[in-house]
Amino acid sequence: MPRLVDHEVRRRQITAAVRQVIVSGGLEAVTFQTVAAEAGISVRLVQYYFGTKKDFLLATHRSVMEDAGARFLQRWTALGPDASPRETIRAVLTELLPLDDQRREETFVLGAFGWAAIVDRGITAEETFAAPRALVAIVADQLRRLQRTAPSNPELDAQLIGMAIGGLAQGMLQGFSSPAAAVELVDHLLDRLLGADTPG
Amino acid sequence: MPRLVDHEVRRRQITAAVRQVIVSGGLEAVTFQTVAAEAGISVRLVQYYFGTKKDFLLATHRSVMEDAGARFLQRWTALGPDASPRETIRAVLTELLPLDDQRREETFVLGAFGWAAIVDRGITAEETFAAPRALVAIVADQLRRLQRTAPSNPELDAQLIGMAIGGLAQGMLQGFSSPAAAVELVDHLLDRLLGADTPG
Repeated sequence: MPRLVDHEVRRRQITAAVRQVIVSGGLEAVTFQTVAAEAGISVRLVQYYFGTKKDFLLATHRSVMEDAGARFLQRWTALGPDASPRETIRAVLTELLPLDDQRREETFVLGAFGWAAIVDRGITAEETFAAPRALVAIVADQLRRLQRTAPSNPELDAQLIGMAIGGLAQGMLQGFSSPAAAVELVDHLLDRLLGADTPG
Repeated sequence: MPRLVDHEVRRRQITAAVRQVIVSGGLEAVTFQTVAAEAGISVRLVQYYFGTKKDFLLATHRSVMEDAGARFLQRWTALGPDASPRETIRAVLTELLPLDDQRREETFVLGAFGWAAIVDRGITAEETFAAPRALVAIVADQLRRLQRTAPSNPELDAQLIGMAIGGLAQGMLQGFSSPAAAVELVDHLLDRLLGADTPG
C-alpha cells in the first residue's frame, strides 16, 4: 500500500520540521507558515495532513516519544533477555537524557511542550503526561523484578527516579550538569535506590 | 537614612511588578512599559532604578531567592538548634515546592527564567545557577552532619536531592503531582537517602 506509506513519510517530514522550528525559535515560532517553509512544502499540504496547529503539535509530541521508545527497544534487544533490572533501568534513563544531538533535540522539544503546558499555550498539561507516566511504569516494572527491594515501594521509587531524571534533563539543557556529571548522577541514583552491589 | 529605605522599597515594588507580569504573560511579556503599568509608576521611574531590562530581570531573580532564603531562616529559627539534619532538609525542600500561592509564583518565575536561559533569551544559564547551587550546598552541609551517611557521598546525595526537587517542582507546576503526592515523595526521598528510621 504505497499510498499509506507515503502518508506516514509525509507526516514524519512535517513533524520533523515542527521540531526544527521549535529548536530554532521555540514553540511560539510554530505556525503553519514556518512549518511549511521548514519542510519545503506548501501550507496547503501541511493543512491536508493536519487540520489544526494543535493536531501537528500533538503528532510532534507523539513522534518524540515514539523515537525514544524505538531506541529503548533497540537497547533492550541489545542487552538480551538476561539483563538485570538495573541494567535495563540504566539503559532507559540514559536514552532519555540529552547526551547527544538527537536526544538533546528531543529533550528540548519535550521541555518546550512542558513549559507550554504550564503557561497554558498550545498544549494542555494532561497531554504532556504520557511520557513521564510511561517512564514511571517501565521503571516500576523493573523494580518489582528486584526481590531485594520488596520492603520498599517500587511505585514511589519509580516516581522518585522519574522526577530526578526530569530535573537532571532540564539541568543539562541549562548547562548546569555536564554529560559526564549526569551519567555519574544516574549511577549514584541507582546505587542509592537499588544498592551499590546490585548486579549489573 | 529614609532615602535609602525608599530606594529599596521602590526596587521591591518594581521587582514585584516584574513577577506579576511574568505570571500573567510569561517572560516574553516583560518590557519597561508592562512593568511600569503593573507597578503603577512611570517608565522613566523604572529606568531610573534599572537602566536595562536585564538589570531588573536579574534583580527579580535575586528577589525570589531572597524571599525563599528569608523563609528558610524563619523555618530554621522555628525548628530550633536541636533540629535533625532530616528535619532541616525537609523544611528547606518544602519551602521550595509550589505548595501555596506565593511559592507557586516563585517556582513559576524561576521556571520561566530557567526556560529563558535554555532558549537563550533575557538571562544566561550561568545567572540561573545560584539557586540550585545554594540548595545543593545547604543540603550537603546537613548530610555531612549525619554520621551514618559517612560511607555515602554527601555531595552526590545533595545533587540527587536537588535534581529530584527541580523535577518535582516542575511536575507540580504542570499538575502532574498534587501537593499531597509531592510531600509524600519528599518524605520517601528522605527515607531512601537518609534511612526511614532517621530521627526527625
